[in-house]
Amino acid sequence: MKPSQYQQLYQDELLTSVIPFWLGKSGDETYGGYFTCLDTEGTVFDTDKFVWLQGRQVWCFAMLYNQVEQKQEWLDFAIQGAEFLKKHGRDEDGNWYFSLTQQGDPLIQPYNIFSDCFAAMAFGQLHLATGNAEYATIAQETFANILRRQSDPKGLYNKAFPGTRPLKNFALPMILTNLVLQLEHLIEPSVLEETIDAGIHAVMEEFYRPELGLILENITLEGEFSDSFEGRLINPGHGLESMWFIMDLAERRGDQALIRKATDLTLSLLEYGWDQQYGGIFYFLDVKGQPPLQLEWDQKLWWVHIETLISLLKGYLHTGDERCWEWFEKVHAYTWSHFPDPTHGEWFGYLNRQGDVLLPLKGGKWKGCFHIPRGLYQCWKTLEAIAQKKSATPLLQD
Amino acid sequence: MKPSQYQQLYQDELLTSVIPFWLGKSGDETYGGYFTCLDTEGTVFDTDKFVWLQGRQVWCFAMLYNQVEQKQEWLDFAIQGAEFLKKHGRDEDGNWYFSLTQQGDPLIQPYNIFSDCFAAMAFGQLHLATGNAEYATIAQETFANILRRQSDPKGLYNKAFPGTRPLKNFALPMILTNLVLQLEHLIEPSVLEETIDAGIHAVMEEFYRPELGLILENITLEGEFSDSFEGRLINPGHGLESMWFIMDLAERRGDQALIRKATDLTLSLLEYGWDQQYGGIFYFLDVKGQPPLQLEWDQKLWWVHIETLISLLKGYLHTGDERCWEWFEKVHAYTWSHFPDPTHGEWFGYLNRQGDVLLPLKGGKWKGCFHIPRGLYQCWKTLEAIAQKKSATPLLQD
Repeated sequence: MKPSQYQQLYQDELLTSVIPFWLGKSGDETYGGYFTCLDTEGTVFDTDKFVWLQGRQVWCFAMLYNQVEQKQEWLDFAIQGAEFLKKHGRDEDGNWYFSLTQQGDPLIQPYNIFSDCFAAMAFGQLHLATGNAEYATIAQETFANILRRQSDPKGLYNKAFPGTRPLKNFALPMILTNLVLQLEHLIEPSVLEETIDAGIHAVMEEFYRPELGLILENITLEGEFSDSFEGRLINPGHGLESMWFIMDLAERRGDQALIRKATDLTLSLLEYGWDQQYGGIFYFLDVKGQPPLQLEWDQKLWWVHIETLISLLKGYLHTGDERCWEWFEKVHAYTWSHFPDPTHGEWFGYLNRQGDVLLPLKGGKWKGCFHIPRGLYQCWKTLEAIAQKKSATPLLQD
Repeated sequence: MKPSQYQQLYQDELLTSVIPFWLGKSGDETYGGYFTCLDTEGTVFDTDKFVWLQGRQVWCFAMLYNQVEQKQEWLDFAIQGAEFLKKHGRDEDGNWYFSLTQQGDPLIQPYNIFSDCFAAMAFGQLHLATGNAEYATIAQETFANILRRQSDPKGLYNKAFPGTRPLKNFALPMILTNLVLQLEHLIEPSVLEETIDAGIHAVMEEFYRPELGLILENITLEGEFSDSFEGRLINPGHGLESMWFIMDLAERRGDQALIRKATDLTLSLLEYGWDQQYGGIFYFLDVKGQPPLQLEWDQKLWWVHIETLISLLKGYLHTGDERCWEWFEKVHAYTWSHFPDPTHGEWFGYLNRQGDVLLPLKGGKWKGCFHIPRGLYQCWKTLEAIAQKKSATPLLQD
């Protein structure tokens, strides 16, 4: 298939399957916010509200309004979620709870800094859409709080005994490389540049191990390998997702060498993480080939696959490396034959190793309206750029 | 097969496969204690020491010494583990850490009260073997600490917001019904009887739901069903394991009605938890048939199956209910054709839904020297009693 044909597929899936699913099924008209625990048909099977997913869905509809079309319905849907979060989401110190009841009462304490990250993303994007200064303030205050907490993100809830085996985790620096561009219009240029520098350094110098061609999930404070369950852990999808964040930063800076490096790393992570036997990308692996702690290690997850498609396409767009296109077609074929549900819309999230649906749900505690629509949008736009580049460069035309 | 033939199988597996495996592979001759992260061959793949598993292994070898044969080698092996725990296992307040490095430095804080439960079990059993008063004191102090913490076992590490949806969890009352008999020789008779009463009440009146024939993992403080992920959770193996704890208490009290009730519940839990498609018992289910949170829900775990065999045999011994024997033969056939490793000894722990080995290990963070040897011993002795009963009652002879 040609890039322009793939482009149409991603665009249609976003606009005719995924967005209508969430718009039609997830709104809580009684208390505001969104239901995310939706079964195959989209029926609500649990009413708890997880702040990660509330924030991500606000972000998603605000982004669609800003980037795709200024539909009032999309904006209203984002605003009602943001108002629910604004009213119920934070404790007295401005930390975001992990989860709330349907009514908005706090259920789980603010132990998880990613609740804050996705809230900041949401209010930043919604400020772009509305110009509402209050949303800007919430995004700014939350971002400042994240930076303040970043050296000890778990705080009180950290179960590690101090000093015995302190480790740095990949997730926060990785998310910051994406979040910072989302908030570009709201933060001081010097903070912006410092955060970008620190993020690129962490991802590409500290957690990336050139001798392995892989990204580790946890390293020592000195940046060394830790021969422990945490230190040996590889989450291929995490690394693969981070590569398009890095490519976006590199593109912004015109850093071709960094794009090349992120593209190479995309390919080596994918070769490592691909299941030769059943296809798809493993969820977790142990870098020394030992049994990982995670019992779900061999499962195939929606976000891992869609994020990989984005990185492959961005790598192809920027470098023209044909290996990216070959891998894109292979991962696309696996992904589209396993995850989407053409009957009821949206995508399944969790497959077993063999590729069968493990949980018959479209959303839950961790899967909401985020990776699939964001990924479809990113693939659509990147394929569009690839198609334009090819038509402007006839020798490359397919 | 006759009960006496099964008996021989369980006895031989314990004495010629499982015990030699741990005795030969798991001792840390440098720092004391045990390695539990052992791969298929029994090679150490991680050196962290998890206090649950250290305590459980001390208990296991002390129990074997007390119950099977007074082998000095077994006692020495238990003592060296207990000395490691005594030296390194507790914080200043006598709470047991969750994990330690190989050398004994604390890694993970004492957030988990089951570390204390298994330490108390270990030192109680080892006191029986040695008469060492220091071991008795550690067991008694730890048990008192558990009772003190039981209304708020997670303490500081509880992430639930106070008051919104307080739930009671099944695990601690369940473990206490077993622990209390292990410590019978060390605790005040009044505390013993009160703890037994409270345990039976919790398991058989509060968490057991007669309308479902099932045991819930979490209920409200008022003993009601909570329609939430936690409230809907069923862990069939947990319920099945608890039934032989209850039968042991009922036998001690001569309470035939309670034995009958626990036997019926064993059968209904098993019918509910059995995978009709692939065989084996599911790890987690949602009582309303919704997708559970646990991605590992459909896996088949070693402890679930061996604990079920014990409850079925005890139910059969005490009631003569032939359904117990039929189910025993069915679960036995599944268990013995999937978990044991005749090549390298011991049993695999984690199978996928289809029954293939998911993690090629004999021990890890959660699997150690405990359920398999305890279960083999319990089945052996129960089968022996069944065989004796049959030979004393010729009409029942098989």
